[in-house]
Amino acid sequence: MTENIYRLPHQIVYYETDPTGKLSLGKLVDLMMLASYAQGKAVGMPEEKLNAQGQGWVITQHLLSVTRLPRRDEKVVIETKATAYNRYFCYRDFWLRDEQGEVLAKMHTAFVLLDLKTRKITRITSDVIAPFGPEPLRSIERLASPKRLAKVELAKDYRVRYFDIDSNHHVNNVHYIEWMLDVLDKDFLMEHEPVALNIKYEHELNYGQTCTSKVELLRSKDELTTLHEIYMADGTLSCSAQVTWR
Amino acid sequence: MTENIYRLPHQIVYYETDPTGKLSLGKLVDLMMLASYAQGKAVGMPEEKLNAQGQGWVITQHLLSVTRLPRRDEKVVIETKATAYNRYFCYRDFWLRDEQGEVLAKMHTAFVLLDLKTRKITRITSDVIAPFGPEPLRSIERLASPKRLAKVELAKDYRVRYFDIDSNHHVNNVHYIEWMLDVLDKDFLMEHEPVALNIKYEHELNYGQTCTSKVELLRSKDELTTLHEIYMADGTLSCSAQVTWR
Repeated sequence: MTENIYRLPHQIVYYETDPTGKLSLGKLVDLMMLASYAQGKAVGMPEEKLNAQGQGWVITQHLLSVTRLPRRDEKVVIETKATAYNRYFCYRDFWLRDEQGEVLAKMHTAFVLLDLKTRKITRITSDVIAPFGPEPLRSIERLASPKRLAKVELAKDYRVRYFDIDSNHHVNNVHYIEWMLDVLDKDFLMEHEPVALNIKYEHELNYGQTCTSKVELLRSKDELTTLHEIYMADGTLSCSAQVTWR
Repeated sequence: MTENIYRLPHQIVYYETDPTGKLSLGKLVDLMMLASYAQGKAVGMPEEKLNAQGQGWVITQHLLSVTRLPRRDEKVVIETKATAYNRYFCYRDFWLRDEQGEVLAKMHTAFVLLDLKTRKITRITSDVIAPFGPEPLRSIERLASPKRLAKVELAKDYRVRYFDIDSNHHVNNVHYIEWMLDVLDKDFLMEHEPVALNIKYEHELNYGQTCTSKVELLRSKDELTTLHEIYMADGTLSCSAQVTWR
């Protein structure tokens, strides 16, 4: 445990796959979050304990890169490690490996600690973070933001449904990814594979609210990128992302 | 293996729970289907083999009863057994048990075998069904149909999204359950627990199609029942259900 890496074995099941038969991007992030939650339990700082003291981790950004998405029935291991933290941010790395240990995907995630009553960011204290063993940082990591849309090519509306919210009454962060990708049509999604995702969460949506998911496609000689923005009904930006495809 | 029951251990994870912190009805059915799929692999008649010979199992009806829905992190076992079959139907039972072996939920499901090319029901041959060991029946089971709506009290529209379809390009049967329940509002769903579900599948929806999910509430002295119907845009009934609550 000196390296502080937590390992979660998993076998991909049919409802984690998309029409291409491969693990969907949203479910990949779900599995990674599961490893992070399991580590909390393993080190004696589970989410329930944090919630009981009026706090909760909230994701502000994911930077994901994908080499290959596993298929139904494939056995994988999800690894995670809290790498570093400063006063307000905790950084965590994730790896998805196949049975041979090859890295299939990597993710770097920034979390903040929320005061559940005031819904404001609160300072990360050592009792909360020390069990995970990350390095203290004086600085804040400068993570590139997703590029913003210059024009909207496709847009669809989504309403936050009952089953989109979890026991903390939050919309699971993975639904934003699905709302972003669903706007691209089936042919596009069947014919392209995501290579990288940079997603930044700005304002949380709540049950019953509607949002508009907008897309712009950028095609260059050797790269295909889609830019995504989700807006709340009042025009507030909820979430933005940039996806690279092959 | 003489009893032909397949057992799948599972631990409930956070994204299988709903805002009440308990396993959602849709995810419960997903887990049961997983046990059925795993049994196919275990007895040498996996879905992939069936698909390769141009056939696939399709659900026509679920009859589910629930004693208690397990919570996040709870360890459970899903059991399944193909109980009986006739020329056109196969019947399968499912049990969800807690760690002490107590039954938390039971389900009886009717399947038909589809010719994937013609999309028509095809006769169940013994090579397909014998590995599961069900009893041959001469008759067809008479399963009660869900009661039909007399008036529509609530209705919402849903569009089949990319991530609602699986690698067979079908809408996972569980999404119909979510479209039915989501129409009831959050307060209702937070304050009531499902005791029984009878759901009958009539016409499959495809990617991009929209449907309308309609509900009627029936309150009697000692029972609360909701009736559900999902209609395709052209007015065809796609699915109907009856849910009893406590």
